[in-house]
Amino acid sequence: MIKNGQTIFLKNKPKIISSASIVGNKEGSGPIGKFFDKVVDDVLWDEKSWERAEGKFLEETVKCAIKKANLLPEDVDFMLSGDLLNQCISANYSARSLNIPFFGLYGACSTMSLSMLLSSVLVSSGAAKICAAATSSHFCSAEKQFRFPLEYGGQRTPTAQWTVTGAGCAIISSNGIGPQICSLTCGKVTDLGVCDLNNMGAAMAPAACDTLVAHFKDTNKTPLDYDLILTGDLGQVGKDILEELMNKEGYDISKNHNDCGLMIFDNDTQDTHAGGSGCGCSAAVFCGYIVPLMQKKHLKNVLFMATGALMSPTSVLQGETIPAIAHAISIKACE
Amino acid sequence: MIKNGQTIFLKNKPKIISSASIVGNKEGSGPIGKFFDKVVDDVLWDEKSWERAEGKFLEETVKCAIKKANLLPEDVDFMLSGDLLNQCISANYSARSLNIPFFGLYGACSTMSLSMLLSSVLVSSGAAKICAAATSSHFCSAEKQFRFPLEYGGQRTPTAQWTVTGAGCAIISSNGIGPQICSLTCGKVTDLGVCDLNNMGAAMAPAACDTLVAHFKDTNKTPLDYDLILTGDLGQVGKDILEELMNKEGYDISKNHNDCGLMIFDNDTQDTHAGGSGCGCSAAVFCGYIVPLMQKKHLKNVLFMATGALMSPTSVLQGETIPAIAHAISIKACE
Repeated sequence: MIKNGQTIFLKNKPKIISSASIVGNKEGSGPIGKFFDKVVDDVLWDEKSWERAEGKFLEETVKCAIKKANLLPEDVDFMLSGDLLNQCISANYSARSLNIPFFGLYGACSTMSLSMLLSSVLVSSGAAKICAAATSSHFCSAEKQFRFPLEYGGQRTPTAQWTVTGAGCAIISSNGIGPQICSLTCGKVTDLGVCDLNNMGAAMAPAACDTLVAHFKDTNKTPLDYDLILTGDLGQVGKDILEELMNKEGYDISKNHNDCGLMIFDNDTQDTHAGGSGCGCSAAVFCGYIVPLMQKKHLKNVLFMATGALMSPTSVLQGETIPAIAHAISIKACE
Repeated sequence: MIKNGQTIFLKNKPKIISSASIVGNKEGSGPIGKFFDKVVDDVLWDEKSWERAEGKFLEETVKCAIKKANLLPEDVDFMLSGDLLNQCISANYSARSLNIPFFGLYGACSTMSLSMLLSSVLVSSGAAKICAAATSSHFCSAEKQFRFPLEYGGQRTPTAQWTVTGAGCAIISSNGIGPQICSLTCGKVTDLGVCDLNNMGAAMAPAACDTLVAHFKDTNKTPLDYDLILTGDLGQVGKDILEELMNKEGYDISKNHNDCGLMIFDNDTQDTHAGGSGCGCSAAVFCGYIVPLMQKKHLKNVLFMATGALMSPTSVLQGETIPAIAHAISIKACE
């Protein structure tokens, strides 16, 4: 492995040998609903709380991805996961049930690329043969924790995004067939002073720009080297800001940029305002929709960059602005 | 790098080229108080909230460790950190100020060994030359978030531990002089059904046992191969349980086992009940006290294993038991 700037180049390229996604009813009714492995109508999924339900989405998704790779949980060396809930209980309790050696992460909605990044380092270095990178979110547990009690029925502002109920998992392996992970760009925490909890896209766009510029400089690539630059989850507001910020930096990404938050819902019919968000948004879109497209070589070069807002309700109440981060993973369809 | 069981063996052994710790007044008055780099009397350290103060402890500790290595923040490839606060705001906001590419972690009080473990993989693989592994905790922010408002003045039970106000940081490098990191044992999430938030030692001891047994089996080592097996932060209750559990597994660790939670406070005079706890406890004891002893070769072989309880107040209120994890790092004094 060698590193240039913020980017790690992988000599032994890990493969995404399988991926899975399980989502809720609203996500299943969206434009890419038919691509998810399972759609669960009941937001509680037979559990007693939204938090336990979220854990079930994560656990069942990891099990599904492992099964699709024709493996057993004991074949997986390490699970890398985290989520939005306080103390990441969704990931922690899932790791307890799965009994796989576990690295806990916190990257808010950047967790899917964070977990894939560190999994790739572990696999490429020989420290692991197979890792499971996964994350989840749940609309109800997130609203309760970050915004208002659902029962309050608060109005959502036009810039607000809708937290996805769902989970995604990618199995990253040294052997096998699948899209190859080529390079990893680690982000810096970036903060341009946004403090509106209902405008995460604006808070995260500068972090996405910072990592994207670093990626292009470190790798000597241009936006056109990718069929798709996939951010998540900036939503409409953040997507527009990112494209404008990138233009100022001399990069036109408008032709091949899309955002997971805009792909999972149809705002015209689903009333999700600026789009989807939550760790589960980019996880489900990437694992459920993008990986299969790369397996079929309908997409050949993808830069996947999940973005996370790193504040807490406490930090915002104390007057802090919202810091954000984005990690980018460069992926090539198998030859 | 090769792996056996849960243990990664490092061919290129990273070195701990410097370490630093900053603690609060109570910790500074304890048995090893004089070894910390700085003792801060004011729990708010001129900040407006305990949460911001905790972030300052972390940030200043990272800066101090970087300075002691004769480096600048821009020389550090990656910072790996997390903490106990909801959404890990202490680490996130510190990473924003330090402007170092950042991997966010959540391992509760296991974070010091979790961050060292992943830093070691990054450095040993060539993905990084220099990483900063760090974590923090704060008595006031932790009590407020996990137990009772401080103003309530609640009685603490005999099994309760006292969250350390402080932070520790280790600079892990491919070059330079310092204790060498030889192997890394990743823990599994373990839960034997403890549900008392005031008895973390009992909740974490089974996870410590599980990782320790895995380490000895994977490495063909015995407890006597180490001068010190250092757990953190089991406290008195957890230490006794761990030694008993290890005995049942056929390992006598009683001769060379100590726990960070028992080293940082003097219970006879400081009224800390079962001992210290919090991410900052093992971080400050390891970085402030143990690393210098290894640099002077007063300790030659240390197994450092921070332990974390992975519940949240919400999960416990919902009737869940407390899952825990422990990661072990085998360290040798430089030759």
